[in-house]
Amino acid sequence: MNNRQIVIASLPTDKLQADNFALRTTPAPTPAEGEVLCRTLVLTVAAGQRAGLQGSASYAGAPRTGVVMGGSAVARVVASNAPDVDVGALVACPSGWQDYSVHPAAAVRVVEDEGDPAHHLGVYGTNGLTAYFGLFDIGEPKNGQTVVVSAAAGSVGHLVGQLAKIAGCRVIGVAGGDEKCRLLTEQLGFDAAVNYRAPDFRDAFRNACAGGVDIYFDNTGGEILGGALRRMKPGGRIVCCGVVSQYDTSNPAPGPRGVPGLLINNQVRMEGFLVFAYAARYAEGRSKLREWVKAGRLRPLQDEFRGLEETPRAFIDMLGGGNVGTRIVRVGD
Amino acid sequence: MNNRQIVIASLPTDKLQADNFALRTTPAPTPAEGEVLCRTLVLTVAAGQRAGLQGSASYAGAPRTGVVMGGSAVARVVASNAPDVDVGALVACPSGWQDYSVHPAAAVRVVEDEGDPAHHLGVYGTNGLTAYFGLFDIGEPKNGQTVVVSAAAGSVGHLVGQLAKIAGCRVIGVAGGDEKCRLLTEQLGFDAAVNYRAPDFRDAFRNACAGGVDIYFDNTGGEILGGALRRMKPGGRIVCCGVVSQYDTSNPAPGPRGVPGLLINNQVRMEGFLVFAYAARYAEGRSKLREWVKAGRLRPLQDEFRGLEETPRAFIDMLGGGNVGTRIVRVGD
Repeated sequence: MNNRQIVIASLPTDKLQADNFALRTTPAPTPAEGEVLCRTLVLTVAAGQRAGLQGSASYAGAPRTGVVMGGSAVARVVASNAPDVDVGALVACPSGWQDYSVHPAAAVRVVEDEGDPAHHLGVYGTNGLTAYFGLFDIGEPKNGQTVVVSAAAGSVGHLVGQLAKIAGCRVIGVAGGDEKCRLLTEQLGFDAAVNYRAPDFRDAFRNACAGGVDIYFDNTGGEILGGALRRMKPGGRIVCCGVVSQYDTSNPAPGPRGVPGLLINNQVRMEGFLVFAYAARYAEGRSKLREWVKAGRLRPLQDEFRGLEETPRAFIDMLGGGNVGTRIVRVGD
Repeated sequence: MNNRQIVIASLPTDKLQADNFALRTTPAPTPAEGEVLCRTLVLTVAAGQRAGLQGSASYAGAPRTGVVMGGSAVARVVASNAPDVDVGALVACPSGWQDYSVHPAAAVRVVEDEGDPAHHLGVYGTNGLTAYFGLFDIGEPKNGQTVVVSAAAGSVGHLVGQLAKIAGCRVIGVAGGDEKCRLLTEQLGFDAAVNYRAPDFRDAFRNACAGGVDIYFDNTGGEILGGALRRMKPGGRIVCCGVVSQYDTSNPAPGPRGVPGLLINNQVRMEGFLVFAYAARYAEGRSKLREWVKAGRLRPLQDEFRGLEETPRAFIDMLGGGNVGTRIVRVGD
């Protein structure tokens, strides 16, 4: 049985290119004692993975070439050498970009085999949990407060905005393009949306935030962070979740002016987090998210590519802001 | 009765100069109903006041020329038109840089008339309270953790380091000059001190922080903040208290690289505060500080200038790092 794998052929020197990846075919691995063999059904690509390809080590460790690109999937167990995971089970696993992967049973999580398996990568996966813990635990939204989200049509952002609405907040989304902005206000319940690619972005952003910002959920860093910093209310919180404006480059911009001066003057808390720190509370997060999805209060979005070989393109396009919601790649059936 | 006043003659265009101030003599004011007339005994100058002279409004509001320079003093009540404050009382008040000032009785605070009145401006004044609430409430030190303080021989820093020792932490001070560094380790109990003016500062700082930093108490911003950001442990806290490296300039530096990326990767909280937010808890803070001073566990330092006319020089010299501990100016007896 063949296993197609997408490996890191070279590290990007500036913007990531398709030829930084290569397709390789090897025999599918055999599960050892206590392991399972998983057939990848759906992969997700996440902007934060680009940080892992930067020269300096990120939270994911220093990047290496010649290895299978990492990534999360929902997969079908096709062979099992572990007593507690049956063949046929649907699991979430850190498959990497390949058709087949083996894992110790403890490294896979059996998920509900109902509906679209991709939801386990989006709203019930890392994206949903990131939105949930980032907004509620770091952001601490209160009824009536104003929340700004960047990359608001993105995999995490579109959920953050809807969760903030559930919390009773006024929500302003920042997204790239008028179409995304319309989606946010017309379909996802955002109160306002501002297109950061429009020539009048600064004015439009200032107007949308005229009453001040209590929580800025930052997925981008860069200029939008700089603008939000100047609009924070006293006691405001900046949830540092991602820096997509800085991932796909070898020359990161300096930090925003006004750090730390504006943090002091406006008594602002700016806090970075990794969702993995909340692993012990994932069940709580998933249960809440499921409740809101089932009640029709939270609408998860995704967009799709088809075929393992399309994964690099799906990833690169996403780094340019091409995605709406969680970007997934359908790999197998 | 004459009142000498130091007024803001012009706003600084780059570094603050003595001729940005002017001495003016007017008749001493008369207290209206409910007011007291105060004779300034001791003034303090604080680096944060420089921010109030910058073109853009700080927390103190936009700067104006032709007005008496603001500032805190301990003063003697020499005339009273208020039933609850007697002539002869020693009070802390927002006198500004002048010999006499009038205040509503509610704007002055009667203080213990015992020992050096300057302590009410240092360890029991804004400096001590800033160190106390900043370290304990924002920094949340735990026994055995590592705390780094910048401007560590300064008005707030020398207290922060000693409070962190009381909390059972390992304390590293960053100060300008070998003499200050010796003072910190030999007399104030700091575990290590690093001279940021030494040519090997970066290496020395890296070595001192080799085990990682739990709390960085930032009084300076700039390069030291940038270095500390790279040394923070997961879950670390950066207490944003002051930005003395950026006050005395019209061209503030960009923010430190790695904001927000390093905050995310290392799950770091960076939080700005103004001590005024803790006004309701000042009594608690003063009582703790007094207890530690009396027990000999906290040693407040101050240095002195003499004469109201010396206040601009005392202030400008402090902005260049000339002070050790709280800088005060003795104005009257």
